[in-house]
Amino acid sequence: MRPRQLPSYYIDGLRAGDRLVLSRAITLVESQLPADQLLARQVMEGVLPYSPQTSVRVGITGVPGVGKSTFIEAFGTYLTSLGNQLAVLAIDPTSQRSGGSILGDKTRMESLSMDPRAYIRPSPAGDSLGGVAHRTRETMLFCEAAGFDVILIETVGVGQSETLVHGMVDFFLLLMLAGAGDELQGMKRGIMELADALAITKADGDNANAANRARVEYQNALHLFPPTGTGWQPPVVTCSATTGSGIAAIWTMIDQHQALFTQTGERVRHRQTQALDWFRTLLRQQIEHRFFSQPGLQEQLQQLEQQVRSGTLLPTQAVEKITQLPMT
Amino acid sequence: MRPRQLPSYYIDGLRAGDRLVLSRAITLVESQLPADQLLARQVMEGVLPYSPQTSVRVGITGVPGVGKSTFIEAFGTYLTSLGNQLAVLAIDPTSQRSGGSILGDKTRMESLSMDPRAYIRPSPAGDSLGGVAHRTRETMLFCEAAGFDVILIETVGVGQSETLVHGMVDFFLLLMLAGAGDELQGMKRGIMELADALAITKADGDNANAANRARVEYQNALHLFPPTGTGWQPPVVTCSATTGSGIAAIWTMIDQHQALFTQTGERVRHRQTQALDWFRTLLRQQIEHRFFSQPGLQEQLQQLEQQVRSGTLLPTQAVEKITQLPMT
Repeated sequence: MRPRQLPSYYIDGLRAGDRLVLSRAITLVESQLPADQLLARQVMEGVLPYSPQTSVRVGITGVPGVGKSTFIEAFGTYLTSLGNQLAVLAIDPTSQRSGGSILGDKTRMESLSMDPRAYIRPSPAGDSLGGVAHRTRETMLFCEAAGFDVILIETVGVGQSETLVHGMVDFFLLLMLAGAGDELQGMKRGIMELADALAITKADGDNANAANRARVEYQNALHLFPPTGTGWQPPVVTCSATTGSGIAAIWTMIDQHQALFTQTGERVRHRQTQALDWFRTLLRQQIEHRFFSQPGLQEQLQQLEQQVRSGTLLPTQAVEKITQLPMT
Repeated sequence: MRPRQLPSYYIDGLRAGDRLVLSRAITLVESQLPADQLLARQVMEGVLPYSPQTSVRVGITGVPGVGKSTFIEAFGTYLTSLGNQLAVLAIDPTSQRSGGSILGDKTRMESLSMDPRAYIRPSPAGDSLGGVAHRTRETMLFCEAAGFDVILIETVGVGQSETLVHGMVDFFLLLMLAGAGDELQGMKRGIMELADALAITKADGDNANAANRARVEYQNALHLFPPTGTGWQPPVVTCSATTGSGIAAIWTMIDQHQALFTQTGERVRHRQTQALDWFRTLLRQQIEHRFFSQPGLQEQLQQLEQQVRSGTLLPTQAVEKITQLPMT
């Protein structure tokens, strides 16, 4: 095993934009070892004063099959061609279940993974979704400290992960397929309400007309939502990773969004709210951890759980016993 | 204001199957007043020994437009015609947001609401989804104590509420519409995996053929899932609330499921796991409540939140300060 480095090794390396140090710093963040986690925090505190607040954090989601990887490959290559330093991260709830990270991430983005201006980090695995989200936030801060000015965070459009990603980005882009009917819109409403823009993918060849019809339909559907109160009306656009059409326009759109939000102060307010939410979530996790680490608690818990299981004790009664507090 | 009754008033009334007392007991459960909640718990403990474990709890979900109310109207009327005492409860995440309960519940189920063997209780509002789930569980126990032997719990197929409902029922029925494509299946996978059966609704008239095709498609899709390990392979059926076709078969299917699960012991194990999960969720809520009620904590929290908001303190640092514990 490599001996543990000093915090300054990571802090200096990150500030110099060293990719190898960045990867090692992220590995610290993802480690379950207390010593690694302490070191990760020291590094985090060390780079915080130097982390620019100017990066653009973009969340990208969509159902399996919508073409997220192909989109990110085309969009990311366009971004680096403009001179941006791009980091691509992923929050994937399915990778927890299988216990392995998405091995395919780099192979799915073949040219981006060879791009010297791009850095792709697969989703960490073997942790709760909340844990993954926490680590992704820290990873994002490290990437920003290392000079990456655009961060793409990809997630699968199922479950809770979109809400988590939405809570850590400046712009949330929802990829959609043409041909999804009213039922799909109803199901997606919760996610559609989070989106800053919708992009209909695969708008090429035989599918171009369907994509355009879908664009109009979704634009109409979005008008049914209450205004965001930020002055931003989420647009619906079409794009094709194959022909490249619409890709540049999406970046222009994000740029306009950022300009508007910077001007109105909404960008700063948004990030402040996100930092607060992160703090509150972490705090809840820590409170639980403290409670469950009490001496003798696990034994008492097991006894009560046995009674709850057998139906002789109501959950409310069991909670009263273990917390020695009346339920409120 | 009516003076508060003694626990025995509710316990005796519930055991006698008195509807008025049941409604009042549920109102106690839904009340935010500590005195009401204490009384509700006393009543709960009083009826627990008499609550039969033989009721069948059925969760019903589906996207808006699938025809949940019409289905429950037809299915419920069939159940009461067999002599069952039926309670219909709802968990509706949208009712929290608007702050009002579903006023339409009873009008949407016109004949069922006039049925002397049926009891319909709209979703409580003005609480967190977790709070609503807790109260629905308690309401269910009261209904069972009052002699209801079939409990239908309806929820809207968006957000987290299906998981909550799945965690409190013996059988989870997913209603689906014909004409939903591959994308919809992809989105529904998480919910489809929870389902004990799928029913394609509106299988009548011009839609009958499409419903049959959908049945075959979904049946094939379900075969892609890993086996449940319980010996139950979730069937896909079609039904029509208009013609009544398939309605009786759904009850037969649930009956077979219950017979199998009773025989294998899975039914008891399932309820035990649910009781444990309920206990653990309540416990987490209570631990948080206790932490946040500490004297002076709110002031300290406000100061730290100010620093987190301004970016001078990392969330991890703020958590360390307020819990006076190193982060783990």
